[in-house]
Amino acid sequence: MVEKKRQVYLDYGATTPVSPEVFSAMEPYFQQKYGNASSIHFVGQEAAEAVGRARGQVAGFFNCQPEEIIFTSGATESNNLALKGVVKKYYARQPGGPRPHIITTKIDHHCVVDSAKALEKEGLAEVTFLSVDKEGMVNPSDLQAAVKKNTILVSVIYVNNEIGVVQPLAQLTGLVKRVDPKIIFHTDAVQAAGYFDLDVTKLGVNLLSLSAHKIYGPKGVGALYIKKGTAVSRMQDGGGHEFGLRSGTLNVPGIVGLGEAVAQVMRNREKDIEHVQILRDKLLAGLSQIEGAAVNGSQKQRSPNNLNMRFANVEGEALLYSLSLAGVAVSTASACASKSLKPSHVLLSLGLPPEQAHSSIRMTLGRYLTDQDINYVIKIFPEIIKKLRQISGDVLQKRLSQKEKRLPDDFGC
Amino acid sequence: MVEKKRQVYLDYGATTPVSPEVFSAMEPYFQQKYGNASSIHFVGQEAAEAVGRARGQVAGFFNCQPEEIIFTSGATESNNLALKGVVKKYYARQPGGPRPHIITTKIDHHCVVDSAKALEKEGLAEVTFLSVDKEGMVNPSDLQAAVKKNTILVSVIYVNNEIGVVQPLAQLTGLVKRVDPKIIFHTDAVQAAGYFDLDVTKLGVNLLSLSAHKIYGPKGVGALYIKKGTAVSRMQDGGGHEFGLRSGTLNVPGIVGLGEAVAQVMRNREKDIEHVQILRDKLLAGLSQIEGAAVNGSQKQRSPNNLNMRFANVEGEALLYSLSLAGVAVSTASACASKSLKPSHVLLSLGLPPEQAHSSIRMTLGRYLTDQDINYVIKIFPEIIKKLRQISGDVLQKRLSQKEKRLPDDFGC
Repeated sequence: MVEKKRQVYLDYGATTPVSPEVFSAMEPYFQQKYGNASSIHFVGQEAAEAVGRARGQVAGFFNCQPEEIIFTSGATESNNLALKGVVKKYYARQPGGPRPHIITTKIDHHCVVDSAKALEKEGLAEVTFLSVDKEGMVNPSDLQAAVKKNTILVSVIYVNNEIGVVQPLAQLTGLVKRVDPKIIFHTDAVQAAGYFDLDVTKLGVNLLSLSAHKIYGPKGVGALYIKKGTAVSRMQDGGGHEFGLRSGTLNVPGIVGLGEAVAQVMRNREKDIEHVQILRDKLLAGLSQIEGAAVNGSQKQRSPNNLNMRFANVEGEALLYSLSLAGVAVSTASACASKSLKPSHVLLSLGLPPEQAHSSIRMTLGRYLTDQDINYVIKIFPEIIKKLRQISGDVLQKRLSQKEKRLPDDFGC
Repeated sequence: MVEKKRQVYLDYGATTPVSPEVFSAMEPYFQQKYGNASSIHFVGQEAAEAVGRARGQVAGFFNCQPEEIIFTSGATESNNLALKGVVKKYYARQPGGPRPHIITTKIDHHCVVDSAKALEKEGLAEVTFLSVDKEGMVNPSDLQAAVKKNTILVSVIYVNNEIGVVQPLAQLTGLVKRVDPKIIFHTDAVQAAGYFDLDVTKLGVNLLSLSAHKIYGPKGVGALYIKKGTAVSRMQDGGGHEFGLRSGTLNVPGIVGLGEAVAQVMRNREKDIEHVQILRDKLLAGLSQIEGAAVNGSQKQRSPNNLNMRFANVEGEALLYSLSLAGVAVSTASACASKSLKPSHVLLSLGLPPEQAHSSIRMTLGRYLTDQDINYVIKIFPEIIKKLRQISGDVLQKRLSQKEKRLPDDFGC
């Protein structure tokens, strides 16, 4: 008899289910307490109070003032606003001023890297993309050396979304601020939020981006911490919501959900860390038995829920599909650009050759995984790898024979 | 005995409750079907299929192709993307090109007007803000006369959010296209969506903005129709979602909710129109009995759910508060900028003097109102007006006497 297929979600880094506690907190704000938080009447005030409570919860999470929190539609908006808003403000203050300089890293999230590239392409900023070492770590002295007289912004991802490596953020901000305290320091803390302290006074950042749906909150809502006095222009014009920095009717249920999500992280963080770390280490031990398996990125400076591995002579996409058919959800290293077959920019930055980057998958763990789930993955994994290696051997054979027949090579398109 | 206070929501133009049908459609996507629609595995594909269905529903609503729909965080984002995205694309195609010209109206929503002003302020566009007549209507020949050789975009609100007046959109688009078919025509159709046909082929628009939370869908989600071939640049960089035009993890439950909301409008529109029109006309008849009451804006070219009235010698804000205490939720004409005491830009555009604009409130009706609700409002309204007029008489007296005592005048701050 075939064993009943188990469904194992190992892609908490892509998104998490909304927790029952968060859903309960949000639910009344769809149908019963449905007010527009900008409305002055009793229906609106009920919504405004809920937003105020959520703002307090997020401020507690960041150890900042409530008025230093801007609610957004998610981390992509927060990151875009951080980078573009700082540059826009720079020019608002000195129209036609000399081109400012921004520093970020080669392993920052697409929405940071691409915002920086967009500013570069439009001629609005000069950008340095810092390299990382083969573990994925930013070299502090590289950062220090990159700071120039016209540097106005540094943006470094706290926990990398693909390989989970953790940058020594407090050290990096301290270093930059010692060179020039006026430089604005931003961090994308999306993947850090579940497992690391986001006290902005300890981190020393001016701007910090957060997303709800990576910490058991809803999709479509995020926040940007803007330290009082940090010069940021709005990108979205309109009714003047969020202290004039982000217009648009507030997503009240989403914001309530984000507030409850961070409150829950504050209550459960230690337990969550222990839970995912034990399971992750077990998964790592199990998968490491597979021939040609290796971990990508630092094993030491790493989020407790992340495991990114490569398997020699296996296509990451094919492995993903095979695991999915077996009920196991993982992502390739290049999760966002799933339809492009470009290798992950993060893995290439570690110095991996493209074929190794292509043979990698990301497994990200979370709250609802069980020991049995991990046992199941460890059990089915070697069989799948074996099968894929057989196929890839066959394909290689066929490919060679096709080439001999002078047929067009359509692989890798 | 005091009659038990009824709660009557007359602010459907600010936001609507999520309908039970929409909520049921969304609910599974928070906790059970929680995938990231960009993920390739089975959990992600379930989410992607739901997004695909919703995209089809919205495309059906607009009578367009699914790939002409971009999901956004709401109408403010859609409107910003429409205006700024068109201008950005213009410069992307001809860097340093001559300044283009945009036309919009003085009664467009803040997020359109302020986006246009931002483009003007940054020197990126020259903007004409069309006046309207005392009924709130755009004069077609004014629009025609405003078109210039460098006009690239016209943006006209379909149904005004404050006074509910309906522009003859098909006529206006036809007129502009006859002058120059290359001019992009955008409309903010947020307040039209519940009661007017949004068939984009009939309307003749290139771009159309929609919000879910005005049609019994959730807050935090909207759409922008972008006719195939319309040149728009993205404003938000990142993972390349939404055909590269709007990066950021898709708000799956929100998008599902928007899809169900438009499907429900398509099923119920005739019934909804009849329902609100009967109640609105009854409310109008009742409140017209009050001395010094008058309707703002066209009574003929008007959304069936909108009533905007002024009451001589009454402060709109004070009326709003008093009604709210009596359980009736309305908005002042200036709903968005509720904390500013500036008179509504829309009402001023009708030629109303500031004191008349200040004495106005907006009542917007919707699906869940009953005849009893309207009876209650008609009953309590005259008493409240009377009381406010007494107070305002007293205040005026006091003010005059204070002035005599040479105390500082702090009214209207």
